[in-house]
Amino acid sequence: MAEVRDLPRHPGESVTVSGWIDAIRVHARVAFLALRDGTGLVQGVVVRSEVPDELWALARSLTQEGSVELTGVVRPDERAPGGHEIAVSELALVGRSEEYPIQPKEHGVEFLLDHRHLWLRSSRQRAGLRVRAEVEQAIHDFLYERDFVRVDTPILTGAIGESAGTLFETDYFGQSAYLAQTGQLYLEAACPAFRKVYCFGPTFRAEKSKTRRHLTEFWMVEPEVAFADSDDNMALQEEFVCHLVRRVLERCGDELATLGRDTAVLEAVRPPFPRISYTEAVERLRESGSEIEWGRDLGAAEESAVSSWFDRPVFVYNYPAGAKAFYMKENPEEPRTVLCNDLLAPEGYGEIIGGSQREDDLERLVARIRADGLPEEAYGWYLDVRRFGTFPHSGFGLGLERTLSWIAGGSHVRELVPFPRLLNRLTP
Amino acid sequence: MAEVRDLPRHPGESVTVSGWIDAIRVHARVAFLALRDGTGLVQGVVVRSEVPDELWALARSLTQEGSVELTGVVRPDERAPGGHEIAVSELALVGRSEEYPIQPKEHGVEFLLDHRHLWLRSSRQRAGLRVRAEVEQAIHDFLYERDFVRVDTPILTGAIGESAGTLFETDYFGQSAYLAQTGQLYLEAACPAFRKVYCFGPTFRAEKSKTRRHLTEFWMVEPEVAFADSDDNMALQEEFVCHLVRRVLERCGDELATLGRDTAVLEAVRPPFPRISYTEAVERLRESGSEIEWGRDLGAAEESAVSSWFDRPVFVYNYPAGAKAFYMKENPEEPRTVLCNDLLAPEGYGEIIGGSQREDDLERLVARIRADGLPEEAYGWYLDVRRFGTFPHSGFGLGLERTLSWIAGGSHVRELVPFPRLLNRLTP
Repeated sequence: MAEVRDLPRHPGESVTVSGWIDAIRVHARVAFLALRDGTGLVQGVVVRSEVPDELWALARSLTQEGSVELTGVVRPDERAPGGHEIAVSELALVGRSEEYPIQPKEHGVEFLLDHRHLWLRSSRQRAGLRVRAEVEQAIHDFLYERDFVRVDTPILTGAIGESAGTLFETDYFGQSAYLAQTGQLYLEAACPAFRKVYCFGPTFRAEKSKTRRHLTEFWMVEPEVAFADSDDNMALQEEFVCHLVRRVLERCGDELATLGRDTAVLEAVRPPFPRISYTEAVERLRESGSEIEWGRDLGAAEESAVSSWFDRPVFVYNYPAGAKAFYMKENPEEPRTVLCNDLLAPEGYGEIIGGSQREDDLERLVARIRADGLPEEAYGWYLDVRRFGTFPHSGFGLGLERTLSWIAGGSHVRELVPFPRLLNRLTP
Repeated sequence: MAEVRDLPRHPGESVTVSGWIDAIRVHARVAFLALRDGTGLVQGVVVRSEVPDELWALARSLTQEGSVELTGVVRPDERAPGGHEIAVSELALVGRSEEYPIQPKEHGVEFLLDHRHLWLRSSRQRAGLRVRAEVEQAIHDFLYERDFVRVDTPILTGAIGESAGTLFETDYFGQSAYLAQTGQLYLEAACPAFRKVYCFGPTFRAEKSKTRRHLTEFWMVEPEVAFADSDDNMALQEEFVCHLVRRVLERCGDELATLGRDTAVLEAVRPPFPRISYTEAVERLRESGSEIEWGRDLGAAEESAVSSWFDRPVFVYNYPAGAKAFYMKENPEEPRTVLCNDLLAPEGYGEIIGGSQREDDLERLVARIRADGLPEEAYGWYLDVRRFGTFPHSGFGLGLERTLSWIAGGSHVRELVPFPRLLNRLTP
């Protein structure tokens, strides 16, 4: 069995391919079958006068998404999608497809999401998810090549993550367990074993948000580095994001074309990324008419405004302590702020990374846990990381689907995960 | 800041390294500090007569797992761990460590698991988890290089997996959601988009099993291939397992030595793997005194017996339909069996892979769902994969921790996951 992607290597040869009917056009004397085999698309040409009657009848009867096996000679054809066509000499039906629900017309998004298991076969969906797979491999390759040790952090946790109230809870043999919102706390504990570590897996937010940017289950990659400060952290993020974008440009040209992505915007993603402090951002926002008060986190509108000042991702660093999580390190030069950063994507795509230097001082950390009203006893093991050989360290979390939404351009995050989980959507 | 792994490239140079005190020996005139920086271990030598009194006093006061930064000249020393030592000229304490709980003595396993966040720093644990990270990268590389498209399947599912009754349940905005036991059903739906797909992530079993081989949360890699039959499936498994073992042999020599693994056993893992039908295995087991009846699944004892007949992993194929899951394809040559296989690791490590060709006939599949008393309505979208262009396809699931337990040799699965989740163990 040949794969469509390999056909250019077999001109003039007879091959057998198998797959699904992506589209079909039947004329009086010839039928064109667009066959998708999962590796590519090829046109099968059935000429009525050259095949047995039964083959012609079978070809005419084929319908969208029926599966077939066909045999014929490969010939170059510039007009054909993929640059080659197959002169069909044998054809077998593998599986019928009657009244395939997704037709070449506009469907409502709820209908498409209800049929996500079939919608995956559509060209834009395939393109977006191939970009996803490429970025995922690039994430692993980047970190592996830089000697990060992958440390899988648990989904089922007894401890609390960043924000109680948005946790999925389950019964764990009589105890309560919560689905993890982050692996960071576990990674911090693994730093003294491996220095540079990361996790990459699904995370969960039971948020009742129904925006373009929210999923209840999404993937996040979280690197954590011992003896790295906030500046080292931003340098790593910059290198990481540039690497991911470059890899997509190099290896996903067809997919970006299918998605209609303006690649000039991605070509501009090169170091250095601009860096602007939170305080400076607030000043500039207020100068341009915003009423944001110092101390409040940036909202989506403010993030869009800041990113519009630049042609590439921008770091906003050192937010007010009150706007950020308890584990971020107090800024010694301005104690009302913490050593952290968000990375905002261009074109209004908003935050794709949140990072920080972690509070490594035991007493300050305990004070923050108490000030935030968090259950101190749940953090006992986390505090041990400060009790036994504490060390400066930094890390960040990059949200996969938001990053992909930016790289792929314009798609809702729900199209960049194979089976999205949204408020009120748990199937398929 | 230098990394210990790079020190062989800096003989005679002055370097600064940072890390944790792995061990310390103080004599009257010299102190030896074994420094672990996460990339390696190096001995720092402090000679009393060559350093200021304060530095000597500080060196003497250091304790296990305290964190330090030290500077000095790198000199080759064959007796030193790592082959080099540092003649310490500067020393700074970063973080103290008083009464570190894990001492160089035997601790009970429950104590160690309670202190998993610190136990990770120990040499055997580091070695096992480095092997894990290497195998994980090898999994992605193998599949990426063979054009598999990674498809992340959801954790939160409305549908049921293989076995109800062992599911973790959570409230999903008023509905019941279950933590996935497998991504297979979703992967089957993605085959018509990408032909060869896989997922790799955490899976969950709410089983009250307390054996060496059970975790409630474990990682599984699941490839799925369109237009592949059961023989293709076993060929892929064979190539995959050989690749993983070879990669560990090539890149984790130090770790295998730390773990005391007999690498001769791993060197024998080459194709072809022996293949024995379930029926033949039962006959041979009965000949050697077992009372197993045809129709029953193999238990741990029987799996150990079968694997003891061979020096490498063995495929047991075509089990009785009644012993296996509903989605396995009926064997046309012997309909009381299904086209499936387990792969049993040598040395009694048991099943590391379960695979099968999937039932691609809509009516037979519906009949199996009904016969097994499964909720037919939950499988509507799964059945669509047979309604619209059904196709022969096969796949398998490789359990990461069980495979690692075999490759690393002798360790309980709980030591091969960073933060194990066991019956009654949810922290740290």
